[in-house]
Amino acid sequence: MLRLMKLVLAVIQDADAAALMRALSDQQFEATKLASTGGFLREGNTTLMIGVDDGRLAALQALIGQTCRSRTRLVPARGLTSENEGGVAQEPVEVPVGGAVIFVLGVEDFVKV
Amino acid sequence: MLRLMKLVLAVIQDADAAALMRALSDQQFEATKLASTGGFLREGNTTLMIGVDDGRLAALQALIGQTCRSRTRLVPARGLTSENEGGVAQEPVEVPVGGAVIFVLGVEDFVKV
Amino acid sequence: MLRLMKLVLAVIQDADAAALMRALSDQQFEATKLASTGGFLREGNTTLMIGVDDGRLAALQALIGQTCRSRTRLVPARGLTSENEGGVAQEPVEVPVGGAVIFVLGVEDFVKV
Ligand code: NI
Ligand code: NI
Ligand code: NI
Repeated sequence: MLRLMKLVLAVIQDADAAALMRALSDQQFEATKLASTGGFLREGNTTLMIGVDDGRLAALQALIGQTCRSRTRLVPARGLTSENEGGVAQEPVEVPVGGAVIFVLGVEDFVKV
Repeated sequence: MLRLMKLVLAVIQDADAAALMRALSDQQFEATKLASTGGFLREGNTTLMIGVDDGRLAALQALIGQTCRSRTRLVPARGLTSENEGGVAQEPVEVPVGGAVIFVLGVEDFVKV
Repeated sequence: MLRLMKLVLAVIQDADAAALMRALSDQQFEATKLASTGGFLREGNTTLMIGVDDGRLAALQALIGQTCRSRTRLVPARGLTSENEGGVAQEPVEVPVGGAVIFVLGVEDFVKV
């Protein structure tokens, strides 16, 4: 059986993985999660492998983009500079979270057995 | 060196992984096993990455299909329904096992160093 | 956003992974490390997934080739033959280390969100 398919490899943050797996499942996308680390994004990422029919590719990319959008989170600033070591109360700082790197590959054949 | 190759990504059940790795090795297919979970098939899957010369692709697909064919297994039924809680002996039930999802990707270049 | 990109999947030995990740980072290549085992090369391999602009593909392949080149290492010979069991001092033997298997895949679309 040959279908017009794409294979999407999406590298996302671990923190977004559970929400994205749930969102994919809700919309009948089938994803396999590969253990991965480092490089793209910050430490602690997850690579998803998702087979998708051509006609649903845009919807899949939009879903990943919405669920894993780049955003910031406030975290305590301790440890970021050495000038603040004397026990002074510190302002929280914004750190970037989320984001995704999405590769779309052509699939020459796809079979389920 | 450029050869006419395909990259096969096969998602299979953990339970079939050892037998398939052995069968692949017996027939001189080189496979790399990626740790993976969830999504395709039931929980507990394995993703194999197999480089294959074009002329052996059909043989590889047949080998995966034979080794990982969808089948059923009888397992004790306990826990499946709440009506059977009172210690009544239960009939075993058939559950699906095996199966594989196979993506074939074109390879633009392949090198061993 | 569509760019002319390739996705490089490189299977290397665990022993070369840290040096290669550092070399890639030094030259602004972005790599994701997938946990992998068996098959290609000897036990204990690592699969890197590296997105690369077309114009830098040759440089990337050269970098992997240099960092992971096939070479030999001297190791104690014990256990290799049964004739040497009586406590006789053994000559060290050369074993192959390093090496890489590199697949280059076309990328139909690449997006960072
Ligand atoms: Ni087909
Ligand atoms: Ni070549
Ligand atoms: Ni695009």
